[in-house]
Amino acid sequence: METRIYSNTQEVIISPDRPTVIIGERINPTGKKRLAASLAEKDMSRVRRLALSQVKDGATVLDVNVGAAGVNEVELLPMAIQAVMEVTDVPLCIDSANAAALEAALQVYKGKALINSVNGEEASLERVLPLAKEYGAAVIGLTMDDSGIPQDPATRVAIAAKIVERAESYGIPREDVLIDCLALSVGADSQAAKVTLEAIQRVREELGVNMTLGASNVSFGLPDREAINSVFLAMVLAAGVNAPIVNPKHARKVAIIADLLLGRDEFAMNYITFYRQQSQGRD
Amino acid sequence: METRIYSNTQEVIISPDRPTVIIGERINPTGKKRLAASLAEKDMSRVRRLALSQVKDGATVLDVNVGAAGVNEVELLPMAIQAVMEVTDVPLCIDSANAAALEAALQVYKGKALINSVNGEEASLERVLPLAKEYGAAVIGLTMDDSGIPQDPATRVAIAAKIVERAESYGIPREDVLIDCLALSVGADSQAAKVTLEAIQRVREELGVNMTLGASNVSFGLPDREAINSVFLAMVLAAGVNAPIVNPKHARKVAIIADLLLGRDEFAMNYITFYRQQSQGRD
Repeated sequence: METRIYSNTQEVIISPDRPTVIIGERINPTGKKRLAASLAEKDMSRVRRLALSQVKDGATVLDVNVGAAGVNEVELLPMAIQAVMEVTDVPLCIDSANAAALEAALQVYKGKALINSVNGEEASLERVLPLAKEYGAAVIGLTMDDSGIPQDPATRVAIAAKIVERAESYGIPREDVLIDCLALSVGADSQAAKVTLEAIQRVREELGVNMTLGASNVSFGLPDREAINSVFLAMVLAAGVNAPIVNPKHARKVAIIADLLLGRDEFAMNYITFYRQQSQGRD
Repeated sequence: METRIYSNTQEVIISPDRPTVIIGERINPTGKKRLAASLAEKDMSRVRRLALSQVKDGATVLDVNVGAAGVNEVELLPMAIQAVMEVTDVPLCIDSANAAALEAALQVYKGKALINSVNGEEASLERVLPLAKEYGAAVIGLTMDDSGIPQDPATRVAIAAKIVERAESYGIPREDVLIDCLALSVGADSQAAKVTLEAIQRVREELGVNMTLGASNVSFGLPDREAINSVFLAMVLAAGVNAPIVNPKHARKVAIIADLLLGRDEFAMNYITFYRQQSQGRD
């Protein structure tokens, strides 16, 4: 099962047999006051810097989200996509809950994008899947619907199956659907991460599609978030996620070691190369 | 499924519903020249220090192994058990491939010990299981037999099932058998950790018994072993291991976060307590 996305010049292949693909999460104003302020002024310099720093840190796809109170996403999202394309050639993940903004961004994007996201709500399926089909994009499906986010793994898997089937009915092949089983904070619900892990495992077994996860939410509200995120990332990669949306600065090392442990790094070549680069960086 | 082991004064319960039990690995002369030298001179001061430091670092059970070239384990293992009992009350895991040494140590141990280990070889089953029965001990079963360590998960699970059944035939309840699915170095075989992870998952699903794992072997021969061990520990705890044999200094934080993520830490109480202790320690 291979999901291929690309820019003008670079292709990224997401597959259970290949190394983990890191989708950089940082171009997102949620909780980032300075980024939100610069976006409100249509200043894209910070977006460009975040794009470059994440690629340097090991992201091979970048998520681009400009959603914030008072922002006109239909105008701003294509501007941000354009700005990122000016400084890097990595493929992009176009992230908005606003279908008009998604379409405006898809119109300027050069390549095959990843759309973030559709979910199991009828309104979402009917608005977003035709866009994915029309622009030849891959799409992330969130395992939630009109009733919210299910608390049990089985219902999340059922929503994932529904999204995959509906995508196919629009002529979008299942390899172009990435499922996101949704990570919620264990600070708010002690069973939250366990439910996500079980859903991931079942999606891998029952649907076999590739998976992403906005993994950092798991530690929201708790101290030393980076430590929690690292342990959770190890678990979700072992369970079947292969293109997590994370901060590459913290996640890259865990992903490289996970690939080593999950049989995706023959002779430990990638691990040893990474270790040497790190060691040289410290000299 | 609860495995209970105890010393004169302390009981430890190993169960999928309870926090991870850390079995300290460090009283073991393999690769430790100074410990090997002091054991050769029957000097137990280093054994006592390793016992105390591991309990301070969060071990709630200690593995005691004195096996080295030229060492008389039948004499030395009970001496080491005695020395550890003098300085700490945590329950012990008596570790030897020599059945006579196991028996000599069981004779001096006060409480219900964990024997490390029996395996699927006929000779091992016939020598070790009667000892576990006679001394009322719990026992670790290694998933290997006369043909060596199987390279496929299914055969490891079959050996685990055989050990559990044979133990029951000796009157040892299955809750007193801990399975060790065996971790081998990913430096030598890129599929090694994947096979172990799959075996662990299947033992949890098919046998439901508690599991240990000598987890640190996975990184043998590779640089930055601690980083690899941490990611692997997160994965094996999610897969079902609940009493790993590890270095508590490095493993404790991962285990506490794993418990938080696996729904075994309501309101994040243990995690927050640990975080505060760490922060105070840094002041």
